[in-house]
Amino acid sequence: MDMHQLTRELQIHNDSKIVLLVADGLGGLPQQPGGLTELETARTPNLDRLAELGISGGSIPVKPGISPGSGPGHLGLFGYDPLHYLIGRGALEATGIGFHLTDQDVAIRCNFCTLDASGKITDRRAGRIPTEQSAPLAMRLRDITLPGAEVFVEPVKEHRFVVVLRGNDLGGNVKDTDPQKTGVPLLDPVPMSPESERTAELAAEFARQGAMLLADQEKANAFSMRGFSAKPELPPYQEVYGLRAAAIAVYPMYKGLAKLVGMDIVGEAKSLEEQIQVVRDCWDDYDFFFVHFKYTDSTGEDGDFDAKVQRIEEFDAAIPSVMELKPAVTIVTGDHSTPSFLKAHSWHAVPTLIVADACRTDACTKFGETESLRGGLGQFEAKYLMLLALANAGRLNKYGA
Amino acid sequence: MDMHQLTRELQIHNDSKIVLLVADGLGGLPQQPGGLTELETARTPNLDRLAELGISGGSIPVKPGISPGSGPGHLGLFGYDPLHYLIGRGALEATGIGFHLTDQDVAIRCNFCTLDASGKITDRRAGRIPTEQSAPLAMRLRDITLPGAEVFVEPVKEHRFVVVLRGNDLGGNVKDTDPQKTGVPLLDPVPMSPESERTAELAAEFARQGAMLLADQEKANAFSMRGFSAKPELPPYQEVYGLRAAAIAVYPMYKGLAKLVGMDIVGEAKSLEEQIQVVRDCWDDYDFFFVHFKYTDSTGEDGDFDAKVQRIEEFDAAIPSVMELKPAVTIVTGDHSTPSFLKAHSWHAVPTLIVADACRTDACTKFGETESLRGGLGQFEAKYLMLLALANAGRLNKYGA
Repeated sequence: MDMHQLTRELQIHNDSKIVLLVADGLGGLPQQPGGLTELETARTPNLDRLAELGISGGSIPVKPGISPGSGPGHLGLFGYDPLHYLIGRGALEATGIGFHLTDQDVAIRCNFCTLDASGKITDRRAGRIPTEQSAPLAMRLRDITLPGAEVFVEPVKEHRFVVVLRGNDLGGNVKDTDPQKTGVPLLDPVPMSPESERTAELAAEFARQGAMLLADQEKANAFSMRGFSAKPELPPYQEVYGLRAAAIAVYPMYKGLAKLVGMDIVGEAKSLEEQIQVVRDCWDDYDFFFVHFKYTDSTGEDGDFDAKVQRIEEFDAAIPSVMELKPAVTIVTGDHSTPSFLKAHSWHAVPTLIVADACRTDACTKFGETESLRGGLGQFEAKYLMLLALANAGRLNKYGA
Repeated sequence: MDMHQLTRELQIHNDSKIVLLVADGLGGLPQQPGGLTELETARTPNLDRLAELGISGGSIPVKPGISPGSGPGHLGLFGYDPLHYLIGRGALEATGIGFHLTDQDVAIRCNFCTLDASGKITDRRAGRIPTEQSAPLAMRLRDITLPGAEVFVEPVKEHRFVVVLRGNDLGGNVKDTDPQKTGVPLLDPVPMSPESERTAELAAEFARQGAMLLADQEKANAFSMRGFSAKPELPPYQEVYGLRAAAIAVYPMYKGLAKLVGMDIVGEAKSLEEQIQVVRDCWDDYDFFFVHFKYTDSTGEDGDFDAKVQRIEEFDAAIPSVMELKPAVTIVTGDHSTPSFLKAHSWHAVPTLIVADACRTDACTKFGETESLRGGLGQFEAKYLMLLALANAGRLNKYGA
């Protein structure tokens, strides 16, 4: 029996509120062996107080040793097994720019590239053409019309843009047209299943018209198409958990991921303070609040230990305003670790805490890697966090008699 | 490969004895944040000594956040994945009163109810008719005869009784006849699969004859039928583990669960002291001894913290007499937590310890939630406990070369 079937059967509705605070890339590493991590270095009186009141543990994003991207990292936290539910590259890229996919869509990541006179690729990224030049070119491609299908073209950054094909019977299983090397032509979009034949035809037609529209360009005179993917089929929050869920995020990617699992995107906050205000404003309308804080990840990716420490302290400072709302269950975690030492997402278990009346407090008095990983929750796969959230909220019946 | 296939292939026979001491609902919660749990409050010198000698950990009954009933709780401890092996409600109710199901049986939970003159339900529980009145009525239904099938009727408590149909080709997949509301008639027993058509016919005939036998009753003039279920198919202990297993329990439910996995029900002990005497008496005849202690759960369900503390101390006092028998492996655990704070079964990991020559002692010196959950076994799903038991008993070969 899968976990969603279980929560469908066991879910209870009550008035409890659950707040999930995600500090992206929260977990870290010391700068030198034996030192403190970013989280342990930061002055976090409010998080430490929660650790004292609550129960701590380590969330393993996917499996031990696996460093996730934002997609699988968040799916795990949302209770969707990230090895079972895959978000295709195109769908993730579209989601990342806030494009809300429908069931009729196939999303494609495109890269502007440079072809020589004989049609062979000389630069797979069109000389990393700056966004000021590439965005207007992407928008020029909006003139393309396809028979019996809608098409959307969205600029992203530098050489990247997204194409979404919308129509009936479009499968997402088409081969990349990027040969991954120069000196050869682009490949044709080849369908990998009968259901994707029409998608491949439309993609070929889009590429043909696109090449004509870009014929006057020196650098960006063509584009490769990669990561063809349909909207992932994720059973919605309301159905699997019985929760009316609100996502309060600043960045489009996280709004998009929340949207894919059926959360409402609420407010237009631009800062953590504004996000908490949105939570406050919609407190009566929802049962579950996902609040996403980006900067613990971006500073980690920059390799800026001190900046990450500072961002963690900023995150800590927002805790009291959340606790004032008196959620039945408060969870603090990250979707993965982003140690500034590695300048990248990593596999390390993420410090996680749950505060609730029946959480069963452990001996932890500080929110940090060393203490949390010895906490009363032990180490667990992120996909089980929602079960703990529901249990602590009194929203799960007993399993079996 | 499933774990049973693994133990079938790897099992070794030797003279070792394994004792599994289950204090039902053992795990708990403090009465107020920061306090001690029932187990931590109790004076348990003998369990503490085992914690010192052994290795501790936290057993997760099903999955994080899932609170199990007694059925899944015990199946996990016995090494049967409680999400894979389901015991139907009827089968569990029959098991709970000590009715030993055969492969030809379908068990049904029945509730006496009250119908008005037009056949509509006015009370789904017949005014919670007391057992003194309901038991004779249930026994009156033993006069019912069915074509080509045996039928057993067993009183339970108040408005509840159990019916078991025994015959060839009886599937357990029939819809409940309880409409779950008053003001409407009882439903017909509808088969949900072709294999269950005959079961539904027999159930309908049973209901028809039953209504006639109850026609003179004011309150309990009919009954609903729910939780139709065949005996669950559980591969027996002897086969999957190579163990001759004895169950020494006081309550019928736990005897029944042990019987379902092929244990012998030994003795008729009425107290823990008598249970240990039974273990002593049959020590040479078995390899594995399951001893069940009920009162840590019932006091937890009553919300009586002090009584649970006292029951834990009673359990502790029995430990030396078990250790005198010098088992190769001694395990102390619970099938789930039952915090008196919640007055219910809960999801919290259960303090568990294993004492054996090669158990690899950890730093724990006290048997309690806070210490155990930091112990050397970490936190693990209950279904793996039997693997640890077998390993510590030297009863598992190496896997692979």
